[in-house]
Amino acid sequence: MTASSDRRLGSLSELAGLVAGGATRRSQLATATGLSRAAVAQRVDLLIDRGLLVETGTVATERGRPPLTLQLASHSAVVVAVDLGATHGTVAVAELGGTVLAEATQELDINDGPEAVLTALDGRIGQLLAEAGRPASHVRAISIGVPGPVEASTGTVVRPPIMRGWDGTRVPAFFEGRYSAPVLVDNDVNMMALGEYAHRPATAHLLYVKVGTGIGCGIVSGGVVHRGASGAAGDIGHIRVPGQDDVLCHCGNTGCVEAVASGAAIAATLRKAGLPAAHAGDVVRLVAEGDPQARRQVRLAAQRIGEVLASLTSFYNPDTIVLGGSIASLHDDLLADIRGAVYRRALPLATRTVTIETTLLGRRAGIEGARRLAVNHLLSPEGIARIVGD
Amino acid sequence: MTASSDRRLGSLSELAGLVAGGATRRSQLATATGLSRAAVAQRVDLLIDRGLLVETGTVATERGRPPLTLQLASHSAVVVAVDLGATHGTVAVAELGGTVLAEATQELDINDGPEAVLTALDGRIGQLLAEAGRPASHVRAISIGVPGPVEASTGTVVRPPIMRGWDGTRVPAFFEGRYSAPVLVDNDVNMMALGEYAHRPATAHLLYVKVGTGIGCGIVSGGVVHRGASGAAGDIGHIRVPGQDDVLCHCGNTGCVEAVASGAAIAATLRKAGLPAAHAGDVVRLVAEGDPQARRQVRLAAQRIGEVLASLTSFYNPDTIVLGGSIASLHDDLLADIRGAVYRRALPLATRTVTIETTLLGRRAGIEGARRLAVNHLLSPEGIARIVGD
Repeated sequence: MTASSDRRLGSLSELAGLVAGGATRRSQLATATGLSRAAVAQRVDLLIDRGLLVETGTVATERGRPPLTLQLASHSAVVVAVDLGATHGTVAVAELGGTVLAEATQELDINDGPEAVLTALDGRIGQLLAEAGRPASHVRAISIGVPGPVEASTGTVVRPPIMRGWDGTRVPAFFEGRYSAPVLVDNDVNMMALGEYAHRPATAHLLYVKVGTGIGCGIVSGGVVHRGASGAAGDIGHIRVPGQDDVLCHCGNTGCVEAVASGAAIAATLRKAGLPAAHAGDVVRLVAEGDPQARRQVRLAAQRIGEVLASLTSFYNPDTIVLGGSIASLHDDLLADIRGAVYRRALPLATRTVTIETTLLGRRAGIEGARRLAVNHLLSPEGIARIVGD
Repeated sequence: MTASSDRRLGSLSELAGLVAGGATRRSQLATATGLSRAAVAQRVDLLIDRGLLVETGTVATERGRPPLTLQLASHSAVVVAVDLGATHGTVAVAELGGTVLAEATQELDINDGPEAVLTALDGRIGQLLAEAGRPASHVRAISIGVPGPVEASTGTVVRPPIMRGWDGTRVPAFFEGRYSAPVLVDNDVNMMALGEYAHRPATAHLLYVKVGTGIGCGIVSGGVVHRGASGAAGDIGHIRVPGQDDVLCHCGNTGCVEAVASGAAIAATLRKAGLPAAHAGDVVRLVAEGDPQARRQVRLAAQRIGEVLASLTSFYNPDTIVLGGSIASLHDDLLADIRGAVYRRALPLATRTVTIETTLLGRRAGIEGARRLAVNHLLSPEGIARIVGD
């Protein structure tokens, strides 16, 4: 790709982004970009020709011919978003502007391996496209969140702790030949972080902390996921919590926050006390039933998670920390102790600007983040390059 | 500023950056940017007119008229870089291309307050400009690193733990009227991180950890300092280390890494053992003399610092961790234990790509980072706007 085409793609991406953000007239685009009207017209025509934008008339007014308005194409372009968990898969077919046309969640076992799981997903995608009345050729991007570490540049699952049989799987390869669309793959918690970020216009630096069976974190600054040098950023489950060195973690170390404060860890503690807690869901149920031992263990877990978040707040200085995952539904019991620990341990300069709250999107954070990532990619210079054949 | 002027400033900034990176011909600039030769000529002439670029002939060749070559102006433009510590101030006057024309380091006490310290600095800047044979009008940017938290957008010192009398000082205000140049202020450790980053072309995500009297950290990703929501990012000195809850920190909490592993903390421990260690410098001296107790305490400190860096490696997934500060000069004793702790505690996916090493620039990291920040700013769209009067 030459520098000249880089610039052209940049201006096409900018124009598409402005339309996505609500600019509907060619004249607005010329003003916002500084491009000439002729240059805007040439570029907009190309984006219309390639099916990314559409131009429609508005209702006629008394003052004569109505101006044409631009918007992201909805009749010939959709994205497919997938949120894959340990035991579920959600698939959504959505218009570029955000409207979800069809969606379904099914139970699955991620440990059945990539072939079985991706085949099931592919079937579901086909079914939902049919339901939405769209052919496969309308799919412009597929975005998949998976419950493990991913090398995002290639979409390869790397040494996942809970995805048996997936290590080294390059997920996009499975979809080659089925769809002529880019396939984006990322860790599910990164997707959730992006989803929560997109719904908080005043946020600049966000940590999304998922407390479910395990504990993980997604980092978004300035709208971009921080993935780090090898895609491992945010993997906070094995940070050591003071005073818990007698607790063995499945990773082989002791005192990891996941081993003492995750939903699975709380359930294990409650089982030892004779309570019927097989997994994180039982913890939530017991607390909802008012069981004092369960509440006590959730509050202790919150203090330990808060210790870790205090360190991360001092280091990263986020303005927003969002708690998600099944245990986060216990917000009354969780938030006070997490906030207490962060305010007690992190520096005042870092805590005076931080908001700690539970998820806005709940279980929809992952699918919403995946949808955002697909649309963001489609409107990026790289996505535009694919569309205009550069 | 309009969108159209934004674009023009962007292209001027891009052209200046290309010249800084070694493009010397107008034809190269046209190829690299995709701008027409006429547009390049118009912009280059403006940058020459405003004293940011110069164009010179080369030695004549047999083949006729030599091509003109462009470079960053050196005869009419300099930057001033300042590295301010607790007990020293270094000032350098440098050409935009990097050549240092004059430099001096003097002892000072930061606790004398802003008026006294900045007046002394201002005198030194004047003296060094005279030494370099440059008038004040040549100064295009002033960049100052200070040993405390800074709100970078306004250059205001915010609640500094060791800068008595500086809280709320807007440093740039002092220089208004003295120089018609932008004054950039940042935390000294951020400056050091930027300096080290600039000397490692293969690095993308760098943590610079300063272990001196205190402990702090600078974070650079993609060439940009991560300052966080309130400029407090990297303030890791008060992260809690497991098993040290009996140690009181000056912040009022217990078990902070700075209270158990900084140069001041090691010196205090050695004093209790009857050794003559008043400060971090004495620790370095004792280790150099082969004192086993001093070496033991440095190694224990390294393990504790390593515990913290293991957490940060899991969270941020850097590719490079640089150790600086006076204690980092003890690299044989420090590195092995820090590396050991990081490799033992952080996740394999994060540690397999991380390099942990001591500073390349040593005491020059701060002044070098300040110089870089000044030049980066000068060539940014914002810096260009000031120069072309937009």
